[in-house]
This record gives sequence, C-alpha cells and structure tokens, in this order.
Amino acid sequence: MGNAKFSFLGQSESPARLQGKIRQFSVVIDEPLELGGTDLAPNPVEYLLAAYAGCLNVVGHLIAQEQGIVLKGLEIAIEGHLNTDTLFGISNQERAGYQSLLVRLSPETDALPEALEKWLHIVESRCPVNDNLLNTTPIKVVLAPRLVAEAV
Amino acid sequence: MGNAKFSFLGQSESPARLQGKIRQFSVVIDEPLELGGTDLAPNPVEYLLAAYAGCLNVVGHLIAQEQGIVLKGLEIAIEGHLNTDTLFGISNQERAGYQSLLVRLSPETDALPEALEKWLHIVESRCPVNDNLLNTTPIKVVLAPRLVAEAV
Repeated sequence: MGNAKFSFLGQSESPARLQGKIRQFSVVIDEPLELGGTDLAPNPVEYLLAAYAGCLNVVGHLIAQEQGIVLKGLEIAIEGHLNTDTLFGISNQERAGYQSLLVRLSPETDALPEALEKWLHIVESRCPVNDNLLNTTPIKVVLAPRLVAEAV
Repeated sequence: MGNAKFSFLGQSESPARLQGKIRQFSVVIDEPLELGGTDLAPNPVEYLLAAYAGCLNVVGHLIAQEQGIVLKGLEIAIEGHLNTDTLFGISNQERAGYQSLLVRLSPETDALPEALEKWLHIVESRCPVNDNLLNTTPIKVVLAPRLVAEAV
C-alpha cells in the first residue's frame, strides 16, 4: 500500500455518545452511566485499547510468519490506568490520558522462549498503534463548517 | 472517579481479526482485504480515530457546559496518513504509525468565534486520548500464560 489514508466522520447524539462512520461500518462510542453517558457502547479510552490490541494481533501474525513461528492462537489483554481529575477539571496535577499501559500477549505456539522474545521485540517496533501511543504525533485541530453533508 | 482502570481482552480469530471483550460489549477488529483481512469490521488504526473522536465529543460537551456554550450539535472528522512500509517490513525509513492527524470539529452553536477558540484550546488540553496521541506514554509489553480462562 505505501502511503495510506484512514478517516472517521461522526455526529454527536448526546453529550457522551458519538455515532460514527468508517467506510461501510457504523461505530458507536459512549460512556458508562458513572461517566455521564448512556452506556450503549465502549468508551473512547476503551476503544483505544481495542485499537492497540487489534494492531498487535495483525502485526503479531505478520512477524510470526516472517520468523517461521506457527501461531495456533493469540490472546491479548491490555489494561490502562488514568486519573479523571484533569478530564473533569478537578485538578491539573495529573496528565489527562493513560499514565501507563500494560499489554499481555499469550501466543499458543511451540516456539522457544528466545524466539518469542525476538518476535515480541519486532512486533512492538512495527505496530502502528504502538508507535502512536509510545511516541509523539503531530496533531492539528481546527474548527470547520458542517461536515456530514460532505460525506453524503 | 479519580483513579480509573480500563481493560480489553481479546482472542485472535484469524491473522487479522481479533474478537474482543470490553465490559458487556463485544468488539471485532479486522482489516480490509487489501491489508490481509476479512473486512468484517474497522481496522486498528481506524478504531484509533474513533476513540479520539469519541473522546473529543465527551470533552467538547463538558467544556461547553463549563463555559456556558450551548452546543446544538457537534460533528467530528479525523483523518490520518501513514506509510505501511514499516508495518510490512519493506523499509524502516518511516515511522510505523500515523505521521500526522487532522481533526476538524464543527460545533453547531451561536457562540462567538473567540469563545469557540478558547473552548477548542481547553478541549484539547483535557481530552485523554488527545494526550495519549500527542505525548509519550509508558508501555510495558510482556508474554503471558493463557488469558481468556481468567476472564470467564
């Protein structure tokens, strides 16, 4: 593919719920009741974990194939901790986002531990979402006129 | 809430498809055919955009309320460009993830432009996903024994 572009377009349905479109797919993002939402879908920081895990699955299989490792299965667990005080304006002592992330990969394979450590290292270095979370990314945020009309 | 923990647990269903669990929700992450998937769901880097947009919606409404801005609607578009050569091992000249992100927010409101610029600035500073994309985040990736059993 080389250079690729990905995009998302969404409309707010309530203060915490966004109805989005990604190619032919509809995606709903919400918040649980205790975070002010209607709990119809995972929340933004949960989708961030799903994106990361999905990426590790793709790259995990790609690198396994390159390294001659047979993956009979792969389980991925990610957890992250954040403090909501900055989000809610209670204090600005903590960063707004995840303070750290713990990723656990459980490959079902007969590969040796050293081969798996090497695999893990390459997976981390070539996973797009890992890169965007681990490193800084230039972002431009602008105000715009109506957007949904352009997508119809 | 203060300190909060969020988590994701998933099982690979194919080299590019992950079936995940977030609280009571099922989430599928896949890739389009041209990226080696079965195209049953958005891909990881698309979910990353959904997470970001969902977060801006929540924080956008929260800050609007704080600033006395009435939001009758909010549309959010995000696009990102990346080069897949690092992912596919073709070269390592480019970073693996998004090289940049462009976010367009279209609030439906009678608020004055200066009030909206201030709103935008505060939204960016208090949005968790914005923080995790714009800044670095400590990540620990480890090999683990079987994970799904623990979730049952």
